[in-house]
Amino acid sequence: MSKEIIELFFNPRSIAVIGASRDPTKVGYQIVYNLKMKYRGKIYPINPKADEILGLKAYPSVLKVEDDIDLCVVSVPAPIVPQVIDECGKKGVKAAIVISAGFKEVGGEGIEREKKLIETAKKYGMRILGPNCVGVYVPKTGVNTTFLNPNRMGFPPHGYIAFISQSGAFGIAVLDWAAMRGIGISKFISVGNKADIDESDLLEYLVEDTDTRVITMYIEGIERGTQFMNIVKKTTTRKPVIALKSGRSEAGARAIASHTGSLAGADAVYDAAFKQTGIIRAYGMEDLFDMAIALSLQPPAKGRRVAILTVGGGSGVMATDAATDLGLEVPRLSDKTVEKLRKVLLPIASPYNPVDVTGSARDEHLIESIEILLKSGEIDAVIWIPYFMVPGISEEIVEKFIERAKKVNQELDVPIPIVGAATGGDYTWKLAKKAEEMGIPMYLSVERAAKAVWALYRYGEWLRKNGVFHEYIENFRKHALR
Amino acid sequence: MSKEIIELFFNPRSIAVIGASRDPTKVGYQIVYNLKMKYRGKIYPINPKADEILGLKAYPSVLKVEDDIDLCVVSVPAPIVPQVIDECGKKGVKAAIVISAGFKEVGGEGIEREKKLIETAKKYGMRILGPNCVGVYVPKTGVNTTFLNPNRMGFPPHGYIAFISQSGAFGIAVLDWAAMRGIGISKFISVGNKADIDESDLLEYLVEDTDTRVITMYIEGIERGTQFMNIVKKTTTRKPVIALKSGRSEAGARAIASHTGSLAGADAVYDAAFKQTGIIRAYGMEDLFDMAIALSLQPPAKGRRVAILTVGGGSGVMATDAATDLGLEVPRLSDKTVEKLRKVLLPIASPYNPVDVTGSARDEHLIESIEILLKSGEIDAVIWIPYFMVPGISEEIVEKFIERAKKVNQELDVPIPIVGAATGGDYTWKLAKKAEEMGIPMYLSVERAAKAVWALYRYGEWLRKNGVFHEYIENFRKHALR
Repeated sequence: MSKEIIELFFNPRSIAVIGASRDPTKVGYQIVYNLKMKYRGKIYPINPKADEILGLKAYPSVLKVEDDIDLCVVSVPAPIVPQVIDECGKKGVKAAIVISAGFKEVGGEGIEREKKLIETAKKYGMRILGPNCVGVYVPKTGVNTTFLNPNRMGFPPHGYIAFISQSGAFGIAVLDWAAMRGIGISKFISVGNKADIDESDLLEYLVEDTDTRVITMYIEGIERGTQFMNIVKKTTTRKPVIALKSGRSEAGARAIASHTGSLAGADAVYDAAFKQTGIIRAYGMEDLFDMAIALSLQPPAKGRRVAILTVGGGSGVMATDAATDLGLEVPRLSDKTVEKLRKVLLPIASPYNPVDVTGSARDEHLIESIEILLKSGEIDAVIWIPYFMVPGISEEIVEKFIERAKKVNQELDVPIPIVGAATGGDYTWKLAKKAEEMGIPMYLSVERAAKAVWALYRYGEWLRKNGVFHEYIENFRKHALR
Repeated sequence: MSKEIIELFFNPRSIAVIGASRDPTKVGYQIVYNLKMKYRGKIYPINPKADEILGLKAYPSVLKVEDDIDLCVVSVPAPIVPQVIDECGKKGVKAAIVISAGFKEVGGEGIEREKKLIETAKKYGMRILGPNCVGVYVPKTGVNTTFLNPNRMGFPPHGYIAFISQSGAFGIAVLDWAAMRGIGISKFISVGNKADIDESDLLEYLVEDTDTRVITMYIEGIERGTQFMNIVKKTTTRKPVIALKSGRSEAGARAIASHTGSLAGADAVYDAAFKQTGIIRAYGMEDLFDMAIALSLQPPAKGRRVAILTVGGGSGVMATDAATDLGLEVPRLSDKTVEKLRKVLLPIASPYNPVDVTGSARDEHLIESIEILLKSGEIDAVIWIPYFMVPGISEEIVEKFIERAKKVNQELDVPIPIVGAATGGDYTWKLAKKAEEMGIPMYLSVERAAKAVWALYRYGEWLRKNGVFHEYIENFRKHALR
């Protein structure tokens, strides 16, 4: 039952916006505006003083709406929120997002108000997201309660990564960045004060969500710790969970107290809990999504042996350093494999590991090399560093390389993950984006590519430890490897 | 004298391209093509089989050119390079870039060939850059011997950062990325095999170069170690030097041996040498330039106390973590300062450190806060996290904020550096780039902004240790702070 209610937040047939406004400077205007952009269900603006808002008929109360309402978005002054929720309950609404601030986070009577809000919701079996949040953004259904002006921010396309954020502003900044970077999002959820729905509820839902392959989180503090750990354990054997937990430092924990009022708790406790439950810890926004992109597009690695296949010698060296720093191995290849590589490469190429095809390379050098490396049985992951700008590499290299790699990988018992590093500008990123569309994640630097491989290794290790590696791979092959 | 010759590589009155070609697939064509784009001196294509190349009169030999030639760019097969250099010497040429590969890096007769090349050059007092390099790129003078097709790569604008690279391909990738990112370059120099000109020669030149504020390097190995250290010591008290040294790991050092043939040497030796001479060490391409941008635009910090001024609470927490991780401090502010902040901020704002003006903030909250923070005497650097997308912040915030900050900083004995973090998409980066044009470096994440502040602190510490902090600040105020 609860999961069906959670579903209403992401895929409602109708949405009432309580506190809808005709004033473009108001949150209640922008929510209706942003919903209208993509959402194709019914939108009911609720405002006792308006007949019509943004071309939609307005109602004085949810009780005056004749149809069923699946989801209410509440943006009215905090003191009247409990009363509004009561009306929603009477109307039979089961899901409400409370955008309004002025609850637990302000202390004092805010705490009482939040209690009352939740008691009211419970009376009706209603679930609450927030208060003090920016709600949800679901590209697939067009549900978008983030109230920022689309002239000032971008919204990412549909994709495989779910993102749960305890900070609304940070969540919005990430969406905006993801839109520019071309990262697809399955669901974004701003949890705010977590008065009712929290990470645990969402994990239970997202683990079953076929649109979500990887779950990412920005966390300041977890309250229901034991429950969280139990649910995470059940999640991470099926989908990767990556968390950015702030408040690592004492000064950071102090800052959290005055931000969301969460108790940050000792960082070591979180760190241990993450390790115990298989959560991969990220140390920054780029780190979080670098790893998430890799895990959403590529299978986990069965071991720590990395092959580096590069057009630029210097980048090969730096990739080796970065991989080694992370505890990965860049092993020498066997004489047999070196010999095979030597046969297909230029005389000036270096057939060891890194395999340096050099700046004089042509497409076939990369394509023959990836086949030899994948078939060698000597490596568990590949970092590909193509240097698209060099003259011998054609514009078709991406298709040619990825098609060959996929073909070889299909024949292997366990597919070998490949990630790319593409330092460069506009032309390079045009091709890099094509590679990502075809399933190979690309990074601006070798260090970030190495971290992505580390995440694939780290998650593979967790799956093996839990005896579900092959099950996951089978499932991944069916759904993710096209 | 030597410096005057080095100058010829960057600002020659005439350039001969030996091995110029009419075939667009050849390096010798692309060099002439790229030179023609921006270089306004005379270009002499040298090719015994052509009368004209790309609309320029071609000559069979440099000896047939009547004018003086300041710089020769040599791209002919390796075996005839020594003979070509001899002709250059006879012509009185004092500077030559040898693009051609097939020297020390291939071993065997390549080693002899490189010796002969250098002996020949020395006979005439000629300086050689390379061989096996991509030469130089100087936006100000249009000298551009990188031989990549401009349809496939971008070239950055003139700026304050010099970049010396031991890897040609990596150097080109960095230029291309810098063009996209909008990072200005004073001089790019690919040193190749360093048969003659090496980092030491270039540092001696660049320390005097008024276009260069920060020197960055990608290094695989340094041969003349003692000389390098002596020159670096003299450089770092006047300009920051940041180095990305690869081959940190054993596997990486092995990879270097097969890339440039350099001896990577024990990493600990480099690390100690860098610390002793004040070189700031970078651990990746983004790290290198993140720090370089900060040091080129902002003064060094006089201490490690950081104020965080943020519109987003979560980002404030993460910035605090990141700064603390790096050994910086995010101190509580005094009651007096907190009181001053409280007076100008919204009641829901947090006037501690991080100073969280909240997503409801308006321009004046940021502007009044920066004045109070800079004047407080309690902090040595500021991380500004503006969240340009929130509705209360106007499009003019960048000008207004930076003008106020500059005004206050001008009145202080020691200016306080400010860096920004702007997680977001197109609108955010339009404003962020404006901020960079006005002198405040902006980063996509708080972690990178914190690292930039760390570099400002670290360099300030080095200057203080050498008793030249105030001298540097005075000079920086005169030339860099507008």
